[in-house]
Amino acid sequence: MCKVAVMGYGTIGSGVVEVLTTNKAVIAERTGEEVEVKYVLDLRDFPGSPVEKLLVKDYKVIVDDPEVEVVVETMGGVKPAYQFVKECLENGKNVCTSNKELVAAHGPELLQIARDKNVNFLFEASVGGGIPIIRPLTQCLTADVIEEITGILNGTTNFILTKMRDEGADFETVLKEAQELGYAERNPEADVEGYDACRKIAILTSLAYGKQVDYNDIYTEGITKITVEDFKYADSIGATIKLVGTGKMTDGKISAMVTPVMIKAGHPLYTVDDVFNGIYVRGNMLGDSLFYGKGAGKLPTASAVAADVVEAVRNRHNNVPIIWSSDKQHVTDYKDVVNSFFVRAKDTSFDEITKIFGEVTKVDSLVDGETAFTTGKMTEGEFEDKYAKLANAVTRIRLAF
Amino acid sequence: MCKVAVMGYGTIGSGVVEVLTTNKAVIAERTGEEVEVKYVLDLRDFPGSPVEKLLVKDYKVIVDDPEVEVVVETMGGVKPAYQFVKECLENGKNVCTSNKELVAAHGPELLQIARDKNVNFLFEASVGGGIPIIRPLTQCLTADVIEEITGILNGTTNFILTKMRDEGADFETVLKEAQELGYAERNPEADVEGYDACRKIAILTSLAYGKQVDYNDIYTEGITKITVEDFKYADSIGATIKLVGTGKMTDGKISAMVTPVMIKAGHPLYTVDDVFNGIYVRGNMLGDSLFYGKGAGKLPTASAVAADVVEAVRNRHNNVPIIWSSDKQHVTDYKDVVNSFFVRAKDTSFDEITKIFGEVTKVDSLVDGETAFTTGKMTEGEFEDKYAKLANAVTRIRLAF
Repeated sequence: MCKVAVMGYGTIGSGVVEVLTTNKAVIAERTGEEVEVKYVLDLRDFPGSPVEKLLVKDYKVIVDDPEVEVVVETMGGVKPAYQFVKECLENGKNVCTSNKELVAAHGPELLQIARDKNVNFLFEASVGGGIPIIRPLTQCLTADVIEEITGILNGTTNFILTKMRDEGADFETVLKEAQELGYAERNPEADVEGYDACRKIAILTSLAYGKQVDYNDIYTEGITKITVEDFKYADSIGATIKLVGTGKMTDGKISAMVTPVMIKAGHPLYTVDDVFNGIYVRGNMLGDSLFYGKGAGKLPTASAVAADVVEAVRNRHNNVPIIWSSDKQHVTDYKDVVNSFFVRAKDTSFDEITKIFGEVTKVDSLVDGETAFTTGKMTEGEFEDKYAKLANAVTRIRLAF
Repeated sequence: MCKVAVMGYGTIGSGVVEVLTTNKAVIAERTGEEVEVKYVLDLRDFPGSPVEKLLVKDYKVIVDDPEVEVVVETMGGVKPAYQFVKECLENGKNVCTSNKELVAAHGPELLQIARDKNVNFLFEASVGGGIPIIRPLTQCLTADVIEEITGILNGTTNFILTKMRDEGADFETVLKEAQELGYAERNPEADVEGYDACRKIAILTSLAYGKQVDYNDIYTEGITKITVEDFKYADSIGATIKLVGTGKMTDGKISAMVTPVMIKAGHPLYTVDDVFNGIYVRGNMLGDSLFYGKGAGKLPTASAVAADVVEAVRNRHNNVPIIWSSDKQHVTDYKDVVNSFFVRAKDTSFDEITKIFGEVTKVDSLVDGETAFTTGKMTEGEFEDKYAKLANAVTRIRLAF
């Protein structure tokens, strides 16, 4: 028998209790013992709910109970989750969390405490919802030098972009619809500005290279400026537009970015639509691989947290190595990152464009008075300088090919 | 420092040595120590090769050397690999293998010896080549009841089917081309008759449900009868044809099959082309997920074996649980498995067809004198009876939708 406490009985937390209850038998088979929820921490009351009698309002009850060996943290946010999790680990409890803000901000420190106490700090659900990606990265792709990780990491924006493409509707209209369906928050900033994807790619890049990538160092651009016309242009060159987070190693240097990109048919991420997430990983031996599934939602995410609980129960007196030191990972200044670009400009002749950009590939204009083209590879800095010289630039989108 | 021996210096074995050598630094970081190949077992000589001085011809040298803690088995086949692996495990060595025949035939027994000796028997590369699927199944999707696993598990047949579709070429022509390119063996039976996929789905289904699925119990059909016309019909209904292995739980009963199926656009496996493999897993909480990558090839497969070596080095005195008992898993007789079907028949009126099959969905004929249709769900047995009544049946292909 192993006793578990769940901190935070919101969407994910109640999902974890549901998974542990519904799949009790199969989980007991796989851990070799019963797994039982002893406490649920929440400031709210849930009269009539199945956890009513397990509710506690003081986290110290959990921290101080030696019978609790595994703690699930599904409160979200850094405060007070950080303090609660830290005290649990320091008291020799394993912690499983879905909290990407916490992991991105304090991952290495919490992993070190877990190591020191010979317990585990696990966070499979913090990236990619139900998709197994953290454990595959830390326990499966361990013989490869990771050359690139590129992921569609945010279900809300992928839902919005897919709908914009399929229905020819503009960003504001689709955002409103997504909000009505509950796929987007009332304050959608974290999703649509790319901040959520930024924390997730910070975590993945840190794990790929073993050092702490500060998400503040990651150049991040959201999808609010993407238009229906951009999708038409993308379609005309056999591509679509996705918001991706990418971490790469080029000549031994690490770069990371979150931006909308044009992805061509044939790329593994091209068909990742709606609220699904997809994470593409390229290893120097493995080549291409893709992990695909539901990146959000109550039960898929809770399934990943509950799988962490299984891993924690199996290894509750044995730290499973996750290499992520607190040493700062130097991230290449985005101006030195090499990309290629799709560009739209008004009232500009192709001659003027080639004078500024040199050789480019013309894209048939789909808007009166516009010239469109794609560039070859150049640094972001070089591109910015050239783009600034275009008197009537409309927009530019990076190419993921 | 951890010493490794490699048994079998063929394509995969030499690949493993290459991965361990090329990525020595990153592997040492991830295991916390140097990993060194001490012996290579092969009956052949490799004059001038980097392993020349490591070659031994007697496996006992490896079994009896206490310094060797991890053994890689990449000989293939059951004999003599079974005996060598068994003795290594009994002598307290961890074993990592890419050998699906060995794993399908003796997995539970070898896992039990590893458990008894507190070492590990690992076989990530036996299914899906470089794609992480064994560890995700045994260590990540552990909180879910697995409802279905369906995989494109054989790169050779997927290459052939993709080429038949894209080039409109017939099976024999494409097979010959695949043989010339080295993608198919001179004796292609194991691939094109589905035997290879059968062993792989036997392994995956065993792991999903924890008991031994005998691959002899799995109804298996290859791709030799698939024609160019079949692809045209598939295309006309928005589908393509893939060889899949599938393991399912329906009302608590386990079924498993290997057959060509028509898969519609939108299914995660639809876009898995060429030599790539894709494994679709549906969990009762997780929903849909897909694992995609290179299912064969020297370095991708060797990368998976080398990742097992990393796992073995990290846990060489600690058995990582893999639940797969030797209890026989009852597999539903294929005649009781429910499927739907695409059917072609010559010189048969639609009236005759509906008299036999009841309500069906007509598919526009693409061949003179033919009638084509898809059926609703029925058992394989029921379908066989009805199909036998069609005097001039041409072919039938199961639908994966």
